[in-house]
Amino acid sequence: MSHYPSSVLNLIKAFSKLPGIGEKTAERLAMHILRAPRREAENLSRSILELKEKVRLCSLCFALSDTDICDICANPERDSATLCVVEQPAEMVAIERSGSFNGLYHILQGVLSPMDGIGPDNIRIKELIARVEQGHIREIVLATGTNVEGEATASYIGECLRNYPVKVTRIASGVPIGGDLKYVDQVTLKRAMETRYDV
Amino acid sequence: MSHYPSSVLNLIKAFSKLPGIGEKTAERLAMHILRAPRREAENLSRSILELKEKVRLCSLCFALSDTDICDICANPERDSATLCVVEQPAEMVAIERSGSFNGLYHILQGVLSPMDGIGPDNIRIKELIARVEQGHIREIVLATGTNVEGEATASYIGECLRNYPVKVTRIASGVPIGGDLKYVDQVTLKRAMETRYDV
Ligand SMILES: [Zn+2]
Ligand SMILES: [Zn+2]
Repeated sequence: MSHYPSSVLNLIKAFSKLPGIGEKTAERLAMHILRAPRREAENLSRSILELKEKVRLCSLCFALSDTDICDICANPERDSATLCVVEQPAEMVAIERSGSFNGLYHILQGVLSPMDGIGPDNIRIKELIARVEQGHIREIVLATGTNVEGEATASYIGECLRNYPVKVTRIASGVPIGGDLKYVDQVTLKRAMETRYDV
Repeated sequence: MSHYPSSVLNLIKAFSKLPGIGEKTAERLAMHILRAPRREAENLSRSILELKEKVRLCSLCFALSDTDICDICANPERDSATLCVVEQPAEMVAIERSGSFNGLYHILQGVLSPMDGIGPDNIRIKELIARVEQGHIREIVLATGTNVEGEATASYIGECLRNYPVKVTRIASGVPIGGDLKYVDQVTLKRAMETRYDV
């Protein structure tokens, strides 16, 4: 790659740091930026900075948000007595896209993974319990992944909530075991949401 | 995608405009930027702008350059009597990487393609002839692609140079017919360069 001028090399290197972008692809992307209209390049550059500057976590549900309280939490038409617990924002987006859920969310920002040193205090479980303790919530739908960590996290949260007057359900059949929730098709997700069961 | 805050959506849209980046990949890249250290994001953002601001075409060979004359043209150790003619900067980089050529380059910035309305005046053929007319050049190596357009461009340039006291050669066997020069391995490119023949 060392036969490009340094401004080109720097961009190739920066693109190469993105996940799944190898050196060849980074080179192709840099050549595209070179030929693209100036406005397109400026827009990409600015969008990257704005993401870092504007996005924070909703102070209620920990979803990505440009404001203190996210659009879903702030929406009076959502059912605030039902919380769907997911691992990451992309999972929340997948469920929203399926149109199968009208409650609020709780994004754990991770999953229990003792191997990686991630325990209950490293994800937003305390904050979930605090929301339940406010007494307004009737149902918690556990929609963590169906892999080992996701199942263990769902079990752990089920245990934590055992003594609270809240119904705890698990997102149901349809989600392939070991699959990544955010790549599941909408129909399957809808089915899984509709057939959720008590744990 | 409409369930992300607008700062995230904007970046997903901007990434989606890059070639070969679909919506799912763009989403994954945006999530990476979100989690990446601020410095990494700023570096990518800045590199994009700097590429647009700094890169120009070398005023001699039309290679990408951060300066008026590129590093290769400015290098006194290169053989300035031999010019290798390629279609695009990436092809020049591929030949440089093969280490088989010590002359200078001439980047056409395209290839003859009547179907796309690209004729001799749309690529840097006049400028190539002007370089030859200065009388200092002894050999022109035609390293345009081996597909129809590349062959036609090589033939056309060969015709243009027929009456000049310059040897015109064509990059040789080894490059697969119809292949894209910039993806050819270094050994093959080296072989093709060494066995170039007169046209
Ligand atoms: Zn929220
Ligand atoms: Zn040059």
